[in-house]
Formats: sequence, C-alpha cells, structure tokens
Amino acid sequence: MKMKPLQVPKRTIMTPGPVEVDPRVLQAMSTPILGQFDPCFTDIMNEVMEMLRELFQTKNHWAFPIDGSSRSGIEALLCSVIEPGDKVLIPIFGRFGHLLVEICERYGADVYTMECPWGEVFDQQKIIAKVKEVKPKIVAIVHGETSTGCMQPLNELGPACRELDVLLIVDVVASIGGANVMVDEWCLDGVIGGTQKCLSVPSGMAPITYNDRIEKIILSRKKVEAGIATAEDIALGNKKNRIHSNYFDLAMLQDYWSPRRLNHHTEATSMLYALREGLRLVLEEGLYERFGRHQYHEKALIAGLKAMGLEIFGDEHHKLPTVTCVKIPLGIDGDWVRQMMLEQFGVEIASSFGPLHGKIWRIGTMGYSCRKENILSVLSALEACLIRAGATIHRGEGLQAALDYYEAPIAAKENANV
Amino acid sequence: MKMKPLQVPKRTIMTPGPVEVDPRVLQAMSTPILGQFDPCFTDIMNEVMEMLRELFQTKNHWAFPIDGSSRSGIEALLCSVIEPGDKVLIPIFGRFGHLLVEICERYGADVYTMECPWGEVFDQQKIIAKVKEVKPKIVAIVHGETSTGCMQPLNELGPACRELDVLLIVDVVASIGGANVMVDEWCLDGVIGGTQKCLSVPSGMAPITYNDRIEKIILSRKKVEAGIATAEDIALGNKKNRIHSNYFDLAMLQDYWSPRRLNHHTEATSMLYALREGLRLVLEEGLYERFGRHQYHEKALIAGLKAMGLEIFGDEHHKLPTVTCVKIPLGIDGDWVRQMMLEQFGVEIASSFGPLHGKIWRIGTMGYSCRKENILSVLSALEACLIRAGATIHRGEGLQAALDYYEAPIAAKENANV
Repeated sequence: MKMKPLQVPKRTIMTPGPVEVDPRVLQAMSTPILGQFDPCFTDIMNEVMEMLRELFQTKNHWAFPIDGSSRSGIEALLCSVIEPGDKVLIPIFGRFGHLLVEICERYGADVYTMECPWGEVFDQQKIIAKVKEVKPKIVAIVHGETSTGCMQPLNELGPACRELDVLLIVDVVASIGGANVMVDEWCLDGVIGGTQKCLSVPSGMAPITYNDRIEKIILSRKKVEAGIATAEDIALGNKKNRIHSNYFDLAMLQDYWSPRRLNHHTEATSMLYALREGLRLVLEEGLYERFGRHQYHEKALIAGLKAMGLEIFGDEHHKLPTVTCVKIPLGIDGDWVRQMMLEQFGVEIASSFGPLHGKIWRIGTMGYSCRKENILSVLSALEACLIRAGATIHRGEGLQAALDYYEAPIAAKENANV
Repeated sequence: MKMKPLQVPKRTIMTPGPVEVDPRVLQAMSTPILGQFDPCFTDIMNEVMEMLRELFQTKNHWAFPIDGSSRSGIEALLCSVIEPGDKVLIPIFGRFGHLLVEICERYGADVYTMECPWGEVFDQQKIIAKVKEVKPKIVAIVHGETSTGCMQPLNELGPACRELDVLLIVDVVASIGGANVMVDEWCLDGVIGGTQKCLSVPSGMAPITYNDRIEKIILSRKKVEAGIATAEDIALGNKKNRIHSNYFDLAMLQDYWSPRRLNHHTEATSMLYALREGLRLVLEEGLYERFGRHQYHEKALIAGLKAMGLEIFGDEHHKLPTVTCVKIPLGIDGDWVRQMMLEQFGVEIASSFGPLHGKIWRIGTMGYSCRKENILSVLSALEACLIRAGATIHRGEGLQAALDYYEAPIAAKENANV
C-alpha cells in the first residue's frame, strides 16, 4: 500500500476542544527526543511540575500529567482514591457529570447523585446540605461543563467539604487556563485539567494535581510492581486495598515523578515538550491576563450572536467563559449548518450530547483559538450558512456588533494585550 | 517564574527505547491539528488502521492505537477480556512477564505462572503442556523481552492455543517493526505494540490489534456510557460483567474507531500524525527489508562488542535482534560507565531491571537509531569509557571488527538499502 504524505486543510477550530494549537507548541513537538532518564529530560519533567503548580494556583507538591486524554486523568485520580464501597456524591449538570458517575461506579463506589437541568448549575448550599446528609468520602464534580457551557462555583463547597472532612475532586478540563481555577483557595483536593482546550496543546495528556489528603490514601494502597520492587518494597507487603489499575496507579506514578524515578511507563516525550511550551505561553501571558482575554472575546462572540438574532442557551450568570452555547433556530438542521461551515469556510463548531444534540451548537473560545479573527470568522460563516439553511436572522448585524465591541474605546485598551 | 525556551542536547540514543525519532515523524507532529470529527481527521484514523493491519500482518478488522504508553495498550486488552476469576497462564522470562502478572492480578484474574531463568526462553512444548494442565481462558506472554534481550518463539504455541480454545495475548512492544511478528500466521488473538521502539515514533501511543474471538468477549461486556447512550444502547442493559476501566474499555473504543464515531476520549491528534508517518516509513522501507536492517546492524554491534572482549548475555539462539545485552565486566560500575558515555559522548545505553541491574547493559538497535553511524558511536564511546573505568579490553578492536563487517562484500550489498 502506498500512503500519501500527511496533508491537512487549514481550519478555524471554534469547538470546545480540541482547539488550534499555538504555533510555538507545534514547533516544540518537532524537537528531537531525549531518553526518559536523561538528566536533561528529568529536568524538563521538573520544570513542567513547577509550571503546573502555577497554573493550578497551588502549593501542592504533586502536579504532573497523566499520559492519555483528559479522561485518563479523571480515571487516574478517582481509581487511586476510590475503594469498593466508598460513598461518592456527584452533582450532575451535564454529560461530564455522568462520566464521573460512570468511572466511580466501575471502581465499585457507592454513588449518590443529584441533578439539575442541563443549562443550570447548583446552589452550593444545596450541595453542602446533601453532603451533610449522605456523608460521602468524596464529592466529585465538574467545574466547567463543556456540554452545557455552564460553570459551577466552588468557593463555598470546597471549604465546607474540608470542614466536613470530605474529599473534593474536580474536573477542570474545560476551564483550566481559560477561567479562574484556584485549587488552594477553594480547597480542592484533587483536580484534573486538559491540554486540548484552553492550554492549546494537542490532546494526549491530562495534567492533575492533588494534595496530601489524597496522597495519604494513595500511599496506604501502594505496592511497587514485581520485576522492579526492592526487598524493602516487598516488605511493605501485598496490600489488599491496592489500586485497581496499573497504568493509573498514582502511587507508582509518584515514584516516577519523584527523584526515585522508578520506571513505570515511558513518559510521552514530545507531548511533554508540547505541554512545557503551552505552560510557558500561559505564564508569559499571565494567568489573569489570559482569563481576561477569554472573557473579552467571549463577549464579542455573544454580542455578535445576539445581534444576529440568536439566543444563548443556559444560565448566563453561570456561563463558562470558554464555551458559548447557542440555540439552534427552530426548523434548522444543526448538523447541516455545521457541515456547511466546515466544508465551505473551514470553520468548525460543535454540537452537543444526549438531550441537547440538535438543540444547541457549542462555540469554543479557548486558548490560541480565542482570537479576534477567529471570532469574526465564526460569526461570518455562521450567518452565511444560516441564511443558506433558510433561517430568518438579522443580516449583517452579527459582524457589525462584534466590530462595534472591538472598536469601542474601553475594549481597545484591553485588546492591545491580545 | 520565567522559564527558558526548550533546548535539548543532541543525543545518540541506543537504549531499547525510547529511541531517536525519525525526522519525518518529528516534522509530521508540527502539522496543525484537526478537530476529532473533521472528516479529514477521521480519514487519517482509517489510514492508520489500514497501515497497522499491514504492520501486524493481519486481516483483523480492529487495529488502532490506545492513547497512552505501551503499557496502556496491555492494560486495555487485558482488562477488556479478563473477568474476575478467569484463569490466565503467564510464562515469565523477564520483567515484562511480571508486568503481565501484575495487570492480570489487579483485574481479578486467577493467575498461573511458569518461569525460566532471565536470559532464556521457553520450549514451546513445555508451555503447551502447561496450558493443557491449567486449562486457562488466556495465555499472556511477552514476545521480545526487552529486560533480557530474548525473543520467545510463538509459531507452535499460537496454533496449539487456538486448537485448545485458549486465547493468546502477546506483548510485542519491543519487537514490532524490528523483528517478524506474524499475528495471523501464528494465531495470536490479541497483540500490543509500542511506538517508541522500532517504529521510531515518540512514546504516547500503543497500537493494538485483536480478532473476532476477542471482540466477542468485549461485545458481551459492552455498555455505552450515560450522557451519550441512545435508548437502544440503554435497552441493551447494565451488564454485570462490564469492563472495569472506562478509559480502556475496548467496547467503547471500538465505537469511536468505527463509522459510528461515538465520542469517547479526544484522540491525541499530533501523536496520531506521528504514528501515521512512522507507519508510512515502515511500509515504504518494506517490513522484511526493515527486519533485515535490524539484524544487519545488530550483527555489526555484536561483532564489535565481542572483539572488544565483552560477553553477550542470554541465549544467542533466541536473541531479540533489537536489543543486545552485554555483561558488565567484573569490578566495573555499570552506571558510572553509562553516565560517562552520556555526559562525554552524548551516547545513551540502558541498564536493566531487578536481578540484572548492575549485571548487564542493554543496547538497542531500533528503528531510526539502528544505523551504521550509531553502531560505531556506541562502540567508540563504550570502549573509551571502559578504559577510563579501568577495564581490561582489547583496545581498538571493537570498531575494527564492526568496520570489517560493514566493509565485507556481502554486507556491502545489504548496506546499500540502509
């Protein structure tokens, strides 16, 4: 078989991930690799840990990526902490809450859920009341629910869980690097981020962080694998409550990410280069400047969509600034519009899952994709394709509203930093 | 914190992985990404499947990568097939046999092992006799044991297992793309490869393949996750014997790698580009030409090492052509020598694990690293550092023997293809 060289079309990717990768990250990935125990490589591992701590706004020692997509990080944290029969409370406000349930159930947890309609978030006090009632070992929750474009406040829930001695594990995949995530300030015990969204690094790594409350559980379940265990490791014994997965065993991963450098997997070299460069870009821009940029362009997008006559889906007071959900006008085939946008304009937006499929589109403003020209491209393509599909919209108004926003004096100042 | 730009020293990587990445693969990774459901991207997914079938020499439909390091592929296959209490027979001849035990035990298998000394392989008839005695559901075994440099023949074991209706699952991480692996011919039911060795692609993906015997088990355990399941999926029910891991659930991964494209994880775009280019390089070179090249340079390396006065470790009749194990001369500190080779010459070789640590070095001849100049560099650096360490060796003989080999008429012809 003769396979042609790789050639990809130019795309404007405005989905909630994966989004366009920063050119500096793409370039970093073409750097020749190093051996996994080469001191120059272990230095890079340490640098990534250091930058991840800044990203997560934490003093936690443990902050490193799991080699796999975002859900690999979720599974690694949950399976390392959950022992069969453990009570886990999961407030669900979208698809990724269900994913947390799914994973916890597979690892034998006794799962309690509470749900609110997709498009809303929970009053934190209601969750706290449920925590007091259920008395779980763990609360697992999503921060930015990419399926609905909503962001759950956690600033009261975290301290309450800490006081009640309940662990709080949070999926910040869709918010990290694009919206504020204060791991220590909010008392989050274990946190999972993603690379392919606001960090503008390709999918394939899941940065996580966790504190000593979680580490204590992990260490109590530790067993070094046969074939590399020392006599001392073996003396520590064959724990009955050992972690179920080998690949996701944080007790062993810790040893690999510590000076002991005990071999576990072979670290994904080029992806680590990519993450390192992505983190450098975040810290160079400044965390809060970056959050500001995400909100800034999100507002331009919303102004454009509304001016076009479209309606934003979900509770606007708890909107995830990195994902904007738009109601598909009645009678319009959402997938047809998306397909035309991609084929004719090279602009990609997303549909949603389950009950929201066909009801809303999701437009991301994430990382490197979160730029003025991309906002203008998506508004332009969406308008043209909507007209083509026969929708009644305010022609020409979307781009004018976005341009008005960008040209307004107060905005112009902020825009200088972009 | 101000982090400096990524800068890595030039290395000659002669470990058994990760090895030097082919420059064409590095370049492919700097290609802008595509959305995961972009038809141009799903075409690439299909192309990778097609090329993997050729690599594995199989007609299996299922051949795709797991997003994670090699052991993620091992865990995905084993955990999707093993149900608690299943008997698994694991013949162990090195560290990675122990890893198979480790993973199977964690998933509740009733594990039976047989061991032979590290440095040897099993007489296949002995394994077959044990299969008849134990009557396991699965035999799991390593093909190329990178910890000892030995390669286990499987051509009799496979057909025997098929006849006894036992599944044979094989770790070919260290051999695939460098030594012959005939999945269909040898009747291997499930096979896990690696990228960072003979494919010269960075670590971060584990290509696997499996046949309908395995698929049948996987489908019997299938459950589509809540949040994306259709009514039909839900009607299929909540299987009691469902697969333990979500991330490694091959039933769901199959749906993602099929025309249904049911969302599971977000495929690691840049790594898939890398794998695609790595596979193109393998198929352009030709599978058997590539195996020939690996053996060709392995012989040069062995000639050089022996001429230097060093001894090869392990059964030479069952040597893995991609890894050469060398006994560390008595009284020499193996790690000191390796460190000096790296620091002074930028040449990296490996130690080994467990009982062999400090006893042998392991030198890889894998993929893009398997080139004449690398063989000559490793021999040169090793000799100089051994002399520096006070070892008594035949000075100057190693390189002369390798050059003799390369310059010999019969070799010259083969070398033209390299």
